[in-house]
Amino acid sequence: MPNFKLVEESAKKIINMEVRGASRIARFAAETLKEFAKTVEKDFDENMRKASEILMNTRPTAVSLFNAINYVMMYKGENDEEKKADAIRRAEEFIRWVDTAKQKIGEIGAKRIKDGWTILTHCNSSTALMVIKTAFRQGKNIEVIATESRPRYQGHLTVKELAGEGIPTTLIVDSAVRYFMKDVDCVIVGADTITVNGALINKIGTSQIALCARESRVPFMVCAETYKFSPATLFGELVVIEERDAREVAPEEILNLGVKVRNPAFDVTPREYIDLIVTEIGAIPPEMAYVIIRERLGYGLEMGELKVSAKHFD
Amino acid sequence: MPNFKLVEESAKKIINMEVRGASRIARFAAETLKEFAKTVEKDFDENMRKASEILMNTRPTAVSLFNAINYVMMYKGENDEEKKADAIRRAEEFIRWVDTAKQKIGEIGAKRIKDGWTILTHCNSSTALMVIKTAFRQGKNIEVIATESRPRYQGHLTVKELAGEGIPTTLIVDSAVRYFMKDVDCVIVGADTITVNGALINKIGTSQIALCARESRVPFMVCAETYKFSPATLFGELVVIEERDAREVAPEEILNLGVKVRNPAFDVTPREYIDLIVTEIGAIPPEMAYVIIRERLGYGLEMGELKVSAKHFD
Amino acid sequence: MPNFKLVEESAKKIINMEVRGASRIARFAAETLKEFAKTVEKDFDENMRKASEILMNTRPTAVSLFNAINYVMMYKGENDEEKKADAIRRAEEFIRWVDTAKQKIGEIGAKRIKDGWTILTHCNSSTALMVIKTAFRQGKNIEVIATESRPRYQGHLTVKELAGEGIPTTLIVDSAVRYFMKDVDCVIVGADTITVNGALINKIGTSQIALCARESRVPFMVCAETYKFSPATLFGELVVIEERDAREVAPEEILNLGVKVRNPAFDVTPREYIDLIVTEIGAIPPEMAYVIIRERLGYGLEMGELKVSAKHFD
Amino acid sequence: MPNFKLVEESAKKIINMEVRGASRIARFAAETLKEFAKTVEKDFDENMRKASEILMNTRPTAVSLFNAINYVMMYKGENDEEKKADAIRRAEEFIRWVDTAKQKIGEIGAKRIKDGWTILTHCNSSTALMVIKTAFRQGKNIEVIATESRPRYQGHLTVKELAGEGIPTTLIVDSAVRYFMKDVDCVIVGADTITVNGALINKIGTSQIALCARESRVPFMVCAETYKFSPATLFGELVVIEERDAREVAPEEILNLGVKVRNPAFDVTPREYIDLIVTEIGAIPPEMAYVIIRERLGYGLEMGELKVSAKHFD
Amino acid sequence: MPNFKLVEESAKKIINMEVRGASRIARFAAETLKEFAKTVEKDFDENMRKASEILMNTRPTAVSLFNAINYVMMYKGENDEEKKADAIRRAEEFIRWVDTAKQKIGEIGAKRIKDGWTILTHCNSSTALMVIKTAFRQGKNIEVIATESRPRYQGHLTVKELAGEGIPTTLIVDSAVRYFMKDVDCVIVGADTITVNGALINKIGTSQIALCARESRVPFMVCAETYKFSPATLFGELVVIEERDAREVAPEEILNLGVKVRNPAFDVTPREYIDLIVTEIGAIPPEMAYVIIRERLGYGLEMGELKVSAKHFD
Amino acid sequence: MPNFKLVEESAKKIINMEVRGASRIARFAAETLKEFAKTVEKDFDENMRKASEILMNTRPTAVSLFNAINYVMMYKGENDEEKKADAIRRAEEFIRWVDTAKQKIGEIGAKRIKDGWTILTHCNSSTALMVIKTAFRQGKNIEVIATESRPRYQGHLTVKELAGEGIPTTLIVDSAVRYFMKDVDCVIVGADTITVNGALINKIGTSQIALCARESRVPFMVCAETYKFSPATLFGELVVIEERDAREVAPEEILNLGVKVRNPAFDVTPREYIDLIVTEIGAIPPEMAYVIIRERLGYGLEMGELKVSAKHFD
Repeated sequence: MPNFKLVEESAKKIINMEVRGASRIARFAAETLKEFAKTVEKDFDENMRKASEILMNTRPTAVSLFNAINYVMMYKGENDEEKKADAIRRAEEFIRWVDTAKQKIGEIGAKRIKDGWTILTHCNSSTALMVIKTAFRQGKNIEVIATESRPRYQGHLTVKELAGEGIPTTLIVDSAVRYFMKDVDCVIVGADTITVNGALINKIGTSQIALCARESRVPFMVCAETYKFSPATLFGELVVIEERDAREVAPEEILNLGVKVRNPAFDVTPREYIDLIVTEIGAIPPEMAYVIIRERLGYGLEMGELKVSAKHFD
Repeated sequence: MPNFKLVEESAKKIINMEVRGASRIARFAAETLKEFAKTVEKDFDENMRKASEILMNTRPTAVSLFNAINYVMMYKGENDEEKKADAIRRAEEFIRWVDTAKQKIGEIGAKRIKDGWTILTHCNSSTALMVIKTAFRQGKNIEVIATESRPRYQGHLTVKELAGEGIPTTLIVDSAVRYFMKDVDCVIVGADTITVNGALINKIGTSQIALCARESRVPFMVCAETYKFSPATLFGELVVIEERDAREVAPEEILNLGVKVRNPAFDVTPREYIDLIVTEIGAIPPEMAYVIIRERLGYGLEMGELKVSAKHFD
Repeated sequence: MPNFKLVEESAKKIINMEVRGASRIARFAAETLKEFAKTVEKDFDENMRKASEILMNTRPTAVSLFNAINYVMMYKGENDEEKKADAIRRAEEFIRWVDTAKQKIGEIGAKRIKDGWTILTHCNSSTALMVIKTAFRQGKNIEVIATESRPRYQGHLTVKELAGEGIPTTLIVDSAVRYFMKDVDCVIVGADTITVNGALINKIGTSQIALCARESRVPFMVCAETYKFSPATLFGELVVIEERDAREVAPEEILNLGVKVRNPAFDVTPREYIDLIVTEIGAIPPEMAYVIIRERLGYGLEMGELKVSAKHFD
Repeated sequence: MPNFKLVEESAKKIINMEVRGASRIARFAAETLKEFAKTVEKDFDENMRKASEILMNTRPTAVSLFNAINYVMMYKGENDEEKKADAIRRAEEFIRWVDTAKQKIGEIGAKRIKDGWTILTHCNSSTALMVIKTAFRQGKNIEVIATESRPRYQGHLTVKELAGEGIPTTLIVDSAVRYFMKDVDCVIVGADTITVNGALINKIGTSQIALCARESRVPFMVCAETYKFSPATLFGELVVIEERDAREVAPEEILNLGVKVRNPAFDVTPREYIDLIVTEIGAIPPEMAYVIIRERLGYGLEMGELKVSAKHFD
Repeated sequence: MPNFKLVEESAKKIINMEVRGASRIARFAAETLKEFAKTVEKDFDENMRKASEILMNTRPTAVSLFNAINYVMMYKGENDEEKKADAIRRAEEFIRWVDTAKQKIGEIGAKRIKDGWTILTHCNSSTALMVIKTAFRQGKNIEVIATESRPRYQGHLTVKELAGEGIPTTLIVDSAVRYFMKDVDCVIVGADTITVNGALINKIGTSQIALCARESRVPFMVCAETYKFSPATLFGELVVIEERDAREVAPEEILNLGVKVRNPAFDVTPREYIDLIVTEIGAIPPEMAYVIIRERLGYGLEMGELKVSAKHFD
Repeated sequence: MPNFKLVEESAKKIINMEVRGASRIARFAAETLKEFAKTVEKDFDENMRKASEILMNTRPTAVSLFNAINYVMMYKGENDEEKKADAIRRAEEFIRWVDTAKQKIGEIGAKRIKDGWTILTHCNSSTALMVIKTAFRQGKNIEVIATESRPRYQGHLTVKELAGEGIPTTLIVDSAVRYFMKDVDCVIVGADTITVNGALINKIGTSQIALCARESRVPFMVCAETYKFSPATLFGELVVIEERDAREVAPEEILNLGVKVRNPAFDVTPREYIDLIVTEIGAIPPEMAYVIIRERLGYGLEMGELKVSAKHFD
């Protein structure tokens, strides 16, 4: 009997943020689909599609989740038996992908950091921090400037993590980025999504950091697993920028005055402000997003090949 | 008997921030010098110089204070009697200057705001808000986007003040400026200091807002009384950027980890990002700072005329 | 008997502009070659080459025509019979390509238009208008600003077509683009040619619109079927900019004074001013032109594979 | 008896465009006031103010007219007799100013043109053409590219005038400016108005020409008599951009379809795109506008000195 | 017996610069490996690896050498016999690649040069000069401006070579590039290395020429054989900029004063200043570097495929 | 008897470069005129004019010389006796001006240099070096990067002078400026001439250094005595860029091949790349050039006041 209860429980964990972070959610969805697939005995296609939709709807705008589910769903086979085996195999493949990508990015990215550099980072990207920590562990004498990343202060997590490693770290408010840019040798950030035209969707504030870096000719490096690249943007979809709760920003006292609060979670950094994207398959210029989507994620050159549901991006 | 106690008490009020805000401090210093002058019976020059130095040292980097004191100290006279009368007259003149400048700026600046515009402002500048409120009171249908202005959240004061006027206001985090810039018709900010080459020293974050405005061809307007222009920069002084307490930015928990905090209070916006400075004597391009310093503040073309103590800016 | 009369007649229709528009000409050439191929009984290669050259010489600088002819001419076969069948099949394939591409571009491009946007367009590109109309038909509340597009006023065709659809439309002179750019959310134009390095060759005036869009951070989107990409530019050819009749620009009275008139039909927009090219196989960054030329149009990585006559581009 | 009939007749000539062109209108207003003044026997102030208002209201947004009237109205005197004499003297002075300024600008500007240069001009500025013609008459071998300047085709007047001088001239459509910019050594245009922050208000299209010039590092030179500088902008006034009749742009047939037409007569070129303004008192950078307004036009540093009616600019 | 003496001798010739120039060294290494392979009778893999390492260490940062050696070392075979045959075949293939690439680049690049153009070149790139000479031999009326290219004055070689061809040539100091840029129609330079994100590593001074070209909207064209593209940069390696002897720059007299000399041989030009890279397989935008590395040089999409020693780039 | 022999001898010393450097020549001319004036007994105006012309023609494009001569020639008096006394007084005043200006600039400029900075300088400006040396003598821990400044290697003089002071100094070739810009905190150069629109005429190469500084947001500071500002540019004169001997650049061997050499001595840096000009009367933005020319050098607002011979600038 197809274990939809398992799927529902997983969905709940994603919704209530028990499981969070782009990579962890993607990995978790692949695991869920793998376990679910094992319980399906007939009507494999239909059952899998139903399970996929339940999972997809937990975070309809999350690209990593979309890529995880679609990667599994690209299974092939002559019959249900073969399909099941292939789906399980693909789920395991995706899980391995997640498990190894961050470390590879750490290795590749660390090579681009020179001894003596000061690095600025924003928010709390485990992939970006992996690059910094790898470089530091290689004995490079580096310092980090971290923004506090209002409204949720993820910068506090970042400075704790780096201080724990023994890396000299300075915390600044988000407004102080341009002031310190003259002392920065490189900006390194993570990614929520990379679009087909090489734009970076990332934590609110990223794009003005990139602009300040460009103004001062400071290299701006993005760390992104290839499952962060968005196939749907190839088909024209705009990435939806989620707006979060006003109470993250303002106290009740102010909200009660009728003051409106806008709290977008992400912003868009255009490709011309990005020097390089470090992925687990190499360092690439942002313009290569199209090639990644086509060759790495398997979305074909012909429109007819598009099978995934684009409405998730509405 | 020269009432130095009065001067000391005034100095204390400035130091402990009982009296604060560039304009208020300047006005208060002029008042103090005026009252002090009345109590001086002989050795006018020496006593006044001593009082001036006490006041100047309360906030040695504050340009408005510098201009207030020096304006009074430019008194002239054949004898102590005449000098005293002139110093009192100049102090009163300066007080009137402060009292009328903001309103004049409000009137001039409001003319530059068009019906239907959305205005972005940063921090809590009473002069910038005067412009916005004047425009609104003239019946212009405007909206305001205010940054929260970490670390001290002066944006909260701003939105309260504007909401109290009935002006539709939106609060955003400092990182979201570039995201919203496409909806902004004009940026209006106040000034701490204007340098001789037209740079604006203002609340940390101002310069990256100006950069974002320029990137999107949005006009960037500064509101500044002419006593915000810095004569010392004419003589080469660099404006000192004050660094404030780390505890404004980070909780103890983080400071205890050995994480460093940098907390500059201001940053520098170059003249090429400024469209216009609205002063009480008209709207001028930032390049005119030299003319203002020379003609309005009375610092002569010849080096020899420089009498003020430039060391306050070290 | 090879029906060269048919070919000559088709050629005449292209020359005297009975058949015009990049897509229509390309489709018409493919149809002509298909019908012609049916009439060839021997010496297939030679006859087809002759017919191709006649057609190619009608508009030697037209990339769509070049791609249409070469697409058909890439037929393969062991003997004339097989070659003929393959050529006919390829011609039909190309015709289908033309017939479906515009609609697909409409669907993909429309997703990038948000409700409430004002779109600026230039000249009269049926592909660009397809995107706009598709978005409008989806219920998006949009407005269009159209340039008149001197010297031939194709903007008049555009506003008629859009008004006929009920889309609110404003007509402006070409000089007013920068003035209105602050009210524009997106620029959408068609393409005559896309070069290998991602430059857009399009109606004169396009490049200064793109420059104004960039100055104001307004996205600039190009709509181009993949048969608008120029293989010859891969081999170094410069696109020739056609100069048209002086009388399109100036009345006789002025020409008689000895005043010279320059009337280039197109200009070149560099890739850094283009955010996205919407093709029938997806939305891509302009830098991907090389990949399109190689993979979609079949021009191989090795110079040796170049069989087409590059002299058409002289 | 004050001859108001004369004033009314002059006003009519300005309104129905019998007298047109910024300089000619200004000169004509000064002449009218001079003749009118002669007829006033008592209540000089009141009569002159009434006459001034009649004239000012003919073209309330015309800066040259504003400056002409205010120049005359700055008369001084102990009694009506003295005032009358001074007003007449000032009127004559202003007329001489107009009469000599253009030629002086021609001389000064011509020095900046080098032998062998190609100059691009826009619209039909007699002052800009004076510079070009003066350089040509000095034997410099120059060529001119003139835009047609839709919607009113003032470029046709320009090419006729230059062809009449024997200067090699090429006419292009407004859209072709960027295409030809690589062949241009210098752009020279006239001015409707110069604002206090150095912006140029001039014929629609000027600002995108300036942008193209800057993109290609081509110098952009403005020719402007000092009576084109706007004192009202010192006091915050925005220059009103006049919108002209839709029928200048579109035929009835299109207007009847419900297509809207926007037809602004001018646009705004920011100071950073302007290399130099040539005035009759020398070549100056645009940032000097404030100094010109203050010292040349007599609008004092103190707000209190503003006597002119700013409401004309609403 | 494996002839290691041959390899050692070749290595010596590279080290003492008897053999120099990126292409010549690469070709020479391939020849050496070919001759060496012929002498290997057993343990083919081990012997070849040893020989490769000897050659690689002569110029550990030279990308062409790296590509030559790795191209040969990608031989395949079931046994030593087959491997040997394949290695020899690959060596010959690489030699042919070198021998034909420059001429092909000359043909492709020459098409992009228009009659009447003035071309600026830097240093002494035989590939860039091939383009210029090919265009001249085609009868195009061109002129060349050559920088002297301190510290080694390779510009002298360039002007001699061009003068020998009869091409009108002007020599300038490196500082004069911006001064002459307004007279330049196109900049053409060679390449030492192209990185995966499209940056050009070339003779010191190249990047400021590119910056000046961009400032003036002058196209900047790079000529590079595809074996100049760096696979190691795909894996994150930074290109090491070699510093050469201080005595190339300063006389002993100055060095003896304790003055430090910095003499980097190359600098880095970012992709946004490069219009086009002309390779032997076509003209491509710099962003295509990734595709060239992957498809032309055979470095796979998957990290696991990376077999080459990246430490050469440390 | 007017001692014209003295004047001729002085002229000879300037021509044969026995006396050289902008400031030294200016001072020497003032001295010569002073001594000459003493020998004039009648026809003072005519004799002085003759002497002035002899001196002016030695270096007709030298602004400092022009300003020196004109400063003296602005003498006034009722009769020859008074004129003579005034001319001698003015000559002495000018000499004092020269003698004190450099030191004052050193003091003002040094304030803008922060402890720990690396400063890049070009050519060998004694005024720029005075700033650097003053800062160093104040105990600031600074380093200098000096360009060699081809073709005459004035950078060698600079590094010797700085090494003599004990300032850590690095010599680089002119091409390496952009490479090192990321390590530079401030660029400081001297000036040959400042034009009315704030452009800097200085040693060839200055403008591309300024461009590189701007690209990296590095402040660019100019040191210029006010007698370097060019009154003639106010009246439209273009500054003539002197071309020097080809043999400074190329050896005979190359010249004999028919290779042309262009050797401009100066280039033009536009005001938007200049942060500040340090003069002896204060630090000013470049846009203030007009005010300096008018108020400091005494060239009036009205064209009629122009008495100096502008033809020297042809």
